[in-house]
Amino acid sequence: MGPDPLDLEAFRRNAYALVDWIVDYLGGLASRPVCEPVRPGDVRAKLPDRAPEEPEGFDAVLADLDRVVVPGLTHWQHPGWFAYFPAQSSPPAILGELAQAGLGVQGMLWSTSPAATEVESHVLDWLVDLLGVPQQWKTTASGGGVLQSGASQSTHTALVVAREQCLLRTGAGPKDMVAYASSQAHSSIEKGARMAGFGHIRLLETDHEFAARPEALAAAVAEDRRDGLAPAFVCSAVGTTGTTGVDPVRRFGEIARVEQMWHHVDAAYAGSAMICEEFRRHQDGLELVDSYTFNPHKWLATNLDCSVMWVADRRPLIESLSVLPPYLRNEASESGQVIDYRDWHGPLGRPFRALKLWFVLRCYGAAGLRSMIRTHVAWARKLVERIDAHSRLATIAPTPFALVSFAHVDGDEATDELVAGINGDGRFHITGSEVDGKRYARISVGSTWTTEADVDALWNLIDATA
Amino acid sequence: MGPDPLDLEAFRRNAYALVDWIVDYLGGLASRPVCEPVRPGDVRAKLPDRAPEEPEGFDAVLADLDRVVVPGLTHWQHPGWFAYFPAQSSPPAILGELAQAGLGVQGMLWSTSPAATEVESHVLDWLVDLLGVPQQWKTTASGGGVLQSGASQSTHTALVVAREQCLLRTGAGPKDMVAYASSQAHSSIEKGARMAGFGHIRLLETDHEFAARPEALAAAVAEDRRDGLAPAFVCSAVGTTGTTGVDPVRRFGEIARVEQMWHHVDAAYAGSAMICEEFRRHQDGLELVDSYTFNPHKWLATNLDCSVMWVADRRPLIESLSVLPPYLRNEASESGQVIDYRDWHGPLGRPFRALKLWFVLRCYGAAGLRSMIRTHVAWARKLVERIDAHSRLATIAPTPFALVSFAHVDGDEATDELVAGINGDGRFHITGSEVDGKRYARISVGSTWTTEADVDALWNLIDATA
Repeated sequence: MGPDPLDLEAFRRNAYALVDWIVDYLGGLASRPVCEPVRPGDVRAKLPDRAPEEPEGFDAVLADLDRVVVPGLTHWQHPGWFAYFPAQSSPPAILGELAQAGLGVQGMLWSTSPAATEVESHVLDWLVDLLGVPQQWKTTASGGGVLQSGASQSTHTALVVAREQCLLRTGAGPKDMVAYASSQAHSSIEKGARMAGFGHIRLLETDHEFAARPEALAAAVAEDRRDGLAPAFVCSAVGTTGTTGVDPVRRFGEIARVEQMWHHVDAAYAGSAMICEEFRRHQDGLELVDSYTFNPHKWLATNLDCSVMWVADRRPLIESLSVLPPYLRNEASESGQVIDYRDWHGPLGRPFRALKLWFVLRCYGAAGLRSMIRTHVAWARKLVERIDAHSRLATIAPTPFALVSFAHVDGDEATDELVAGINGDGRFHITGSEVDGKRYARISVGSTWTTEADVDALWNLIDATA
Repeated sequence: MGPDPLDLEAFRRNAYALVDWIVDYLGGLASRPVCEPVRPGDVRAKLPDRAPEEPEGFDAVLADLDRVVVPGLTHWQHPGWFAYFPAQSSPPAILGELAQAGLGVQGMLWSTSPAATEVESHVLDWLVDLLGVPQQWKTTASGGGVLQSGASQSTHTALVVAREQCLLRTGAGPKDMVAYASSQAHSSIEKGARMAGFGHIRLLETDHEFAARPEALAAAVAEDRRDGLAPAFVCSAVGTTGTTGVDPVRRFGEIARVEQMWHHVDAAYAGSAMICEEFRRHQDGLELVDSYTFNPHKWLATNLDCSVMWVADRRPLIESLSVLPPYLRNEASESGQVIDYRDWHGPLGRPFRALKLWFVLRCYGAAGLRSMIRTHVAWARKLVERIDAHSRLATIAPTPFALVSFAHVDGDEATDELVAGINGDGRFHITGSEVDGKRYARISVGSTWTTEADVDALWNLIDATA
């Protein structure tokens, strides 16, 4: 007989030990390389071919976090993390995840854990006020918010609803439907459209600041109509992944209204910044939006996975996604007084994800989150100033938020060498990418544990390498 | 200035306190009603209208778990939980979730945290051996496993791949495609088919044991072909949600091969039982299956969300779902030597979900999990014997696993009263449902914390109420 996995006193001791381990991990990250040196198969080579037949003690498992896991990680919580977008975590969010795991409830219906639904609705209504988006998006009005696993899921859901709305209105089949987005839009738009069965996706030309041009949208829609196709969905990106380009939400919304298309905003990264009033001008026109998504798991201190999706009107969403078998029937649902979140997305079962967002909003306070966002943006702007003042470097796109996009003046090869040099140092991780055929470096400022000293050290390395 | 949310020593103290709270919560559940008495709006009424401006201490948050959350829960981890299917949790899985939250890595690509991908592939290969499914399903062979958020997502993904395969082969549009499943199949098949844009879904007639009839499948396919439609997808349910009916996997697979349809198995609940050899006869014919899903978060001691999806051949899956933008290009992916799980499902970002499954397999050991499954099945069979020996009760379906389906001999009203009486007591929660127009009671044995004494007490209450 090995240890009993259900022994709660053993759980208490093991959990304390794991908490200590996490404190050491997070506190010690700065002394590790951001990307551990690891080749394909290295991690698996350390694991036995078969699962153990008898129970192992938790000590052995904990030891394998050090032996097997950590040496095989790319440390997203490293203070030197400047790659992709951040995947923020924070102590309050970790506690929220632990509470969720400990409660182990499943909130598919209001009745299967009313608090899971109501805390979620309430916190997302709080965010309507905090981010200054339309009051209509509150669950207490005609719209409402729901937590999805990611912006990909939110966008895919919006595409499905758009398709169903277009079908109801025009009778067109998915193969004849068209989705529109910036050529700089996130790959999830194309993937979501493909998964939803759209026959066509048009990636629109952008201007010199990488914002999609409304004239390009209008022209594409007109051409598709001439060809007998059915324009059904348009996405405005507020902060594209490549360069945080900002599409003209109001102009896209006006075209969407005239053309009866579903208008979705993908603000996966930049949405969190809207907690500060000064960034909201980048999304003027939200009253012309049908759905909106942003990820607190990127830049609002809340662990993966936690993506907000709002709709201005919840009816088409629910009509598209509700399937009611007998074993889920219940009095509360039939009363019409409650939200059953299973009808707001693809999945049925759902953990109590709102806990961690609730914990974060309370332990940071709105002021604390605003301060974090503004600090990251200020550090990014300081980098921009230094780059623009540097003889061998030049920014290639504006920095409306905290992403800095720049290149070496000697061209693609020099830029790639610069990125390789910075990443080769080990203390930092940035992304090399390409836009309009040109290589560039992306520095995304916003890891939870990054300090001004880290940003300065990164700059010194850039300067020395360039 | 309030408390600093990034203070790691405060985090340590707060996490210890939360661990203590969870131990008390789990240890004290038996003294609470399974379903807290709560009306719509009760939970929200306890929350302030606005998010706090300044940071709150974690003490206040922890206190609100008692004040706001717990009185609004339906306690899925209660020892008296016999409703729906279980949503198992366990101390090792809670520790796995905590480790995942603490690491905060994002494994969309192999390169963005190699260990996240490799542990997942490895543990799912372990499960191939543990569950005795085809060796071809291993990532080291032509197939492979991936963790999805739930069976709904796995099934939806399979439907999308089926649609793309059918399109490539026949040129048919989604509106002309047909998906087939038992009339007893889970609602996620219908929902997934709708989300994937299938024009038609046929719910097949079942036999007296609630297994779909292969003759019904063959006849429906023939009729649809006559009507010019394109049969594309068939689901075999191994353990339907209503009564754990078992479709004839081999016969469905033979028809699917002849008709060139994608064959998916939904074993969301019953799949976990396959860790014991004696249940595998219920899924004979797996070599004729294209994809398979089961949820360790139901009956394998692993917290939500954790759903396994296996494919026999990973190529059509990846071809259907891969979209590669420049900012995700990397050497490892281009080498073809690694798995990038973002191409195996809809979402892009993904937490390190495999940790909790790895922790569970190690802390229970295969023997411990087999013993748990066999114990639950034995308790369910004991209930079946008692029901069949009772003058006023009768089972209405077989019990191949640990779900007991029965009714009062006096008819629907008496059955509904029986269910209401049992649930009204507060110590237990069971589900009332309907099949073929007949009301029945569902008792699903399998909550992590249920003991034989709980099952006996439930029986005494049933006996007294009937």
